[in-house]
Amino acid sequence: MSDKSLSDLKDALRTFAAERDWEKFHTPKNLAMALAVEVGELIEHFQWLTGDESRSLTPQKLDQVEEELADVFIYLVKLSDTLGVDLIDAAFRKIAINSKKYPAKRVRGSAKKYTEY
Amino acid sequence: MSDKSLSDLKDALRTFAAERDWEKFHTPKNLAMALAVEVGELIEHFQWLTGDESRSLTPQKLDQVEEELADVFIYLVKLSDTLGVDLIDAAFRKIAINSKKYPAKRVRGSAKKYTEY
Amino acid sequence: MSDKSLSDLKDALRTFAAERDWEKFHTPKNLAMALAVEVGELIEHFQWLTGDESRSLTPQKLDQVEEELADVFIYLVKLSDTLGVDLIDAAFRKIAINSKKYPAKRVRGSAKKYTEY
Amino acid sequence: MSDKSLSDLKDALRTFAAERDWEKFHTPKNLAMALAVEVGELIEHFQWLTGDESRSLTPQKLDQVEEELADVFIYLVKLSDTLGVDLIDAAFRKIAINSKKYPAKRVRGSAKKYTEY
Repeated sequence: MSDKSLSDLKDALRTFAAERDWEKFHTPKNLAMALAVEVGELIEHFQWLTGDESRSLTPQKLDQVEEELADVFIYLVKLSDTLGVDLIDAAFRKIAINSKKYPAKRVRGSAKKYTEY
Repeated sequence: MSDKSLSDLKDALRTFAAERDWEKFHTPKNLAMALAVEVGELIEHFQWLTGDESRSLTPQKLDQVEEELADVFIYLVKLSDTLGVDLIDAAFRKIAINSKKYPAKRVRGSAKKYTEY
Repeated sequence: MSDKSLSDLKDALRTFAAERDWEKFHTPKNLAMALAVEVGELIEHFQWLTGDESRSLTPQKLDQVEEELADVFIYLVKLSDTLGVDLIDAAFRKIAINSKKYPAKRVRGSAKKYTEY
Repeated sequence: MSDKSLSDLKDALRTFAAERDWEKFHTPKNLAMALAVEVGELIEHFQWLTGDESRSLTPQKLDQVEEELADVFIYLVKLSDTLGVDLIDAAFRKIAINSKKYPAKRVRGSAKKYTEY
């Protein structure tokens, strides 16, 4: 596990943009769009694979996927920071919401969320 | 700042899926697709706004955006965990690559990355 | 097959926007973003299905998918019209490019495009 | 305007895939994912532009955008054909639905759809 935290990453990205005077491009709208672009590059790696194939990527392919995951993460952290959102807290709040929405006892095995859809 | 870490979140998501027996749906391909779906829901909030408008969301809108950011983050962490990728490390490696690709001295002010594109 | 043409659709969409004074929102940037949002809603229907399952949708699900396909198409036609691009011509030009890039004799059976990726 | 029709395009795409034995990759799920990938490449061209800038692309940029529009269109037509959906008819049905949902008299000038969101 990394010895760096999400907070360190946020700081590094602020410094990176400030050193280049790029904040002016980083409106939430533009960052959201950039995030979508990076997700497109990420899913490209999986588009023609079966589910099983996607579980056993070659090391070379995995390296490429890792780089795309990093790009997605970077824009997600930038966007959240620009909006003043704490990603970790927001995620835990969402998990609490989902826990009530899909109680383990009720959905276990039935995968209701997926099959009812 | 949250007192939880990315590692705590990863653990919470593993438990959440295990309690519901949902791992079978979570192939990397499916998770990547779910991530793309959530990003679509996120950018929907910004689609008709100008860049300036996107900088000053109403509190109500910001709450909605925060929930979408959480969804994106959750699937990104799930997908990375499934593939064995450490997101923080991957992001710092990418920043190092970008620092060489776009040296601050050369691109500062000119925003070369953006205007040349 | 429909007795309407793509040109009829383009005209109908121009009228629809003009009657509502919505052209001001329809910058290429915004239309491209709206297109991405609709594609997110489309792929949501397929995210947890296997490839085989996606080939045999229920009639009810197919109706929902059809409506999403329509939304994607509408924004694609709007965006192309705004930019002065003839979609049919552009697609045939792209097929010609792809025919040279992936000669049938060479890639047949090997699915080179897919497996090499 | 092109002298080819959407129906001609559908036929050309069927022939293209058959000649290469690529139908096996073309499940609706995979085609939907490929469509999302192409939309990502399309919106990349607009991500850092203002709305006004996106209205006046250089000829070189417009050529690139046109090629991405073609890719999006090709996968949209493939996916619709695979599912047996007539895109033109579906789009006109959707316009009829939207006409009732957003009556011109009520929304004109106020852009209710956009501002209420």
